[in-house]
Amino acid sequence: MSFAHAHLLGIEQLNPFDIITLLDLAETYVDLNRRDVKHSDALTGLTQINMFFENSTRTQASFELAGKRLGADVMNMSMQASSIKKGETLIDTAMTLNAMHPDLLVVRHPHSGAVDLLAQKVNCAVLNAGDGKHEHPTQALLDALTIRRAKGRLQRLNIAICGDIAHSRVARSNILLLGKMENRIRLIGPPTLLPSPFKDFGVEVYDDMREGLKDVDVVMMLRLQKERMDGGFIPSEREYYHRYGLDAEKLSYAKPDAIVMHPGPMNRGVEIDGEIADDINRSVIQEQVEMGVAVRMAAMDLLARNLRARRAEKGVMV
Amino acid sequence: MSFAHAHLLGIEQLNPFDIITLLDLAETYVDLNRRDVKHSDALTGLTQINMFFENSTRTQASFELAGKRLGADVMNMSMQASSIKKGETLIDTAMTLNAMHPDLLVVRHPHSGAVDLLAQKVNCAVLNAGDGKHEHPTQALLDALTIRRAKGRLQRLNIAICGDIAHSRVARSNILLLGKMENRIRLIGPPTLLPSPFKDFGVEVYDDMREGLKDVDVVMMLRLQKERMDGGFIPSEREYYHRYGLDAEKLSYAKPDAIVMHPGPMNRGVEIDGEIADDINRSVIQEQVEMGVAVRMAAMDLLARNLRARRAEKGVMV
Amino acid sequence: MSFAHAHLLGIEQLNPFDIITLLDLAETYVDLNRRDVKHSDALTGLTQINMFFENSTRTQASFELAGKRLGADVMNMSMQASSIKKGETLIDTAMTLNAMHPDLLVVRHPHSGAVDLLAQKVNCAVLNAGDGKHEHPTQALLDALTIRRAKGRLQRLNIAICGDIAHSRVARSNILLLGKMENRIRLIGPPTLLPSPFKDFGVEVYDDMREGLKDVDVVMMLRLQKERMDGGFIPSEREYYHRYGLDAEKLSYAKPDAIVMHPGPMNRGVEIDGEIADDINRSVIQEQVEMGVAVRMAAMDLLARNLRARRAEKGVMV
Repeated sequence: MSFAHAHLLGIEQLNPFDIITLLDLAETYVDLNRRDVKHSDALTGLTQINMFFENSTRTQASFELAGKRLGADVMNMSMQASSIKKGETLIDTAMTLNAMHPDLLVVRHPHSGAVDLLAQKVNCAVLNAGDGKHEHPTQALLDALTIRRAKGRLQRLNIAICGDIAHSRVARSNILLLGKMENRIRLIGPPTLLPSPFKDFGVEVYDDMREGLKDVDVVMMLRLQKERMDGGFIPSEREYYHRYGLDAEKLSYAKPDAIVMHPGPMNRGVEIDGEIADDINRSVIQEQVEMGVAVRMAAMDLLARNLRARRAEKGVMV
Repeated sequence: MSFAHAHLLGIEQLNPFDIITLLDLAETYVDLNRRDVKHSDALTGLTQINMFFENSTRTQASFELAGKRLGADVMNMSMQASSIKKGETLIDTAMTLNAMHPDLLVVRHPHSGAVDLLAQKVNCAVLNAGDGKHEHPTQALLDALTIRRAKGRLQRLNIAICGDIAHSRVARSNILLLGKMENRIRLIGPPTLLPSPFKDFGVEVYDDMREGLKDVDVVMMLRLQKERMDGGFIPSEREYYHRYGLDAEKLSYAKPDAIVMHPGPMNRGVEIDGEIADDINRSVIQEQVEMGVAVRMAAMDLLARNLRARRAEKGVMV
Repeated sequence: MSFAHAHLLGIEQLNPFDIITLLDLAETYVDLNRRDVKHSDALTGLTQINMFFENSTRTQASFELAGKRLGADVMNMSMQASSIKKGETLIDTAMTLNAMHPDLLVVRHPHSGAVDLLAQKVNCAVLNAGDGKHEHPTQALLDALTIRRAKGRLQRLNIAICGDIAHSRVARSNILLLGKMENRIRLIGPPTLLPSPFKDFGVEVYDDMREGLKDVDVVMMLRLQKERMDGGFIPSEREYYHRYGLDAEKLSYAKPDAIVMHPGPMNRGVEIDGEIADDINRSVIQEQVEMGVAVRMAAMDLLARNLRARRAEKGVMV
């Protein structure tokens, strides 16, 4: 079996076999989650701590359910209300939690690289649930699983990633993953939201939706990070939608069986037309959420196996 | 067995047999909760999500304990801190959670009808934990169980509901339930807090406490929704207590064995005299809280049975 | 076996045999927590409610993990967001939760004595997680376990408690515990943070660190309660560190094998030099956190045994 990693910090560290191993295991959890009794004992007796330094309803919920369904003891730390306010450093907070012997630490942090730093300090498995503009690996993995299920494969697809790419760790992790799997990636967005570094990833760049969507298999819309922009942006929402929002007319340039994706939460009428989002023949947005729980179960299961193996080798813990 | 419902949205949809079925099952959970080991496996492997769009210490705690004691994986969503703030609609939020395959969704929402709407969109069992001024069915059921245990029956009782009826979903659900069970209901309160529509429920209306309480078996006080009124109300608290607050003198007009109820949290000295609230010979206020956990266990147990049966029929899930 | 208590309200009520009983049991939980599968069924089927009227990341997390690892159903109540805001009294809130049949109630409250008061009103086991400036018994117990493991004994040690003693329930509980175990205690701090009542505990008092630390076995630093002081204090942080902050030079006055403790969260460069805090040959700060979980498991285990025994005697519950 592949996937010999101690942590899941980013897609960057994974090879194609890692990715396939993880997606294959996730498939079994998709089945489990559709049953009445959705329980495994993969993490029984293990402790999972969710440290979210940024609010996130859906990602935290997805990790929480994933851990509970695998039998872990799950604890959520609301880090906004925490010792951080009392002047404690990030590393001291992490070391404190580490001393409580968690096995899995799920971390979201507003600063790129903070999760990597933390992983070097603790002796449990760390999962990156999003760090700054850097990586959001479980999002890319759930997107990959969704694509593979819809398209029957995860290679040689034409995939368009559209919108606010500059602010998006989702885009970055997806570009890395889909590139490793040898897909053709197009980035579409206004030049101001599409900085030049992305041009080096071997991707094609468009600022016209119709041109960029031509014959693609997958249309991956991004969330416009409205909350990171000031009120002055509001008048241009209509303009943004006009040029970059996905509607039926623009979508008609893609392949007839192209699927539509969005990581959520959606701004209907800004990034995407509500009818397209709800069209069960095109949109896989709900399935993305479903795959999210399964992918996180698979990631935690694999990391827990590696953790146990490392501990057994050391002979320190049983 | 009765209770063939997919959801518990309100008392309105229940018939007397549903109510009796639920209360009888709740009695078994009263017994369980008084034991050391208060655990059943009725919901083992099922996922319960509590979505509270309004804060509620006691109701959320009651549902959370109910689910945990039945073996469910319980997840609380603090919806104030959620994607709602990022512009997502209620339905999108609900659909997102639905995609994570919850089995039971417990929802409190400030808008009347929001929970019904939500139930139409998801494929799990929905429990209304209070929606606007509309319904709060588990509160009415726990009140009914408390009355039945104290009075030995739930029929042909004289029951006074007193206070701020206009703002109260508790009152509305209780009027519906107690009416279905063929009790005689009196509403007592200032005309401004007792709007005319309630007069159509076949109830008697009083604005004088002594007159209204005469020979009743049950005195059900309501919480004065102080937090929904502006500061200008404060000077009249004393006047309110004088006219509508339950004290020993007013209570003397009720039957000698009349019980006193309050849904909590209480404003002592506003709706009710503290000594009456604490009088274990008259007040069943603590028992109401105890019955709350049992009634919610029963409701979730029944809905889970129906959910399993529906899924088995469809053959989609096992 | 000793430890016949119904509650853990303070060190004041414990005798040396109670303390040794609890620490010995905690040792077994230290071992359990270092295993992969860190689970016991000591509290299976019991309900633990954490009522924190003050924020506390680490103490609440420690109690939560302790309960979950022992198999309890654990519920956190964020009391800031609670009915307290709706005008309910502390006692009414406690009685409401009590009616839900918790077995263990863990309470932190800003007022000294509030937890004792609450314990008189409920019929479950209450654990004081810190009340005002009064007691924080599990902190003193975890400190004692840490000292015993590092020094091989808990008697006849020279122990310095340094810093903001006036505001510290941690100091107070430690002085009580270490005194009962016949250690020699020195308090070191600025006279303004070291009020006269402490002089009556049979302790020695110093305002010079070098003098006070001379030949001690244990240096117990306290957190400077910066958040309880106004902005005017900030300019004197440097002065505070100069006179009372623990650095290598001051520590050189202690015994060569003296250990350094801090209850956290630390203000590095205010109470303690960062390098000393991180020096694994001197600092046992991380081990204190680890011992915290074990001590809380032991305390809850013992209280649950006593609770079961009391109930069995009464024959009311099984």
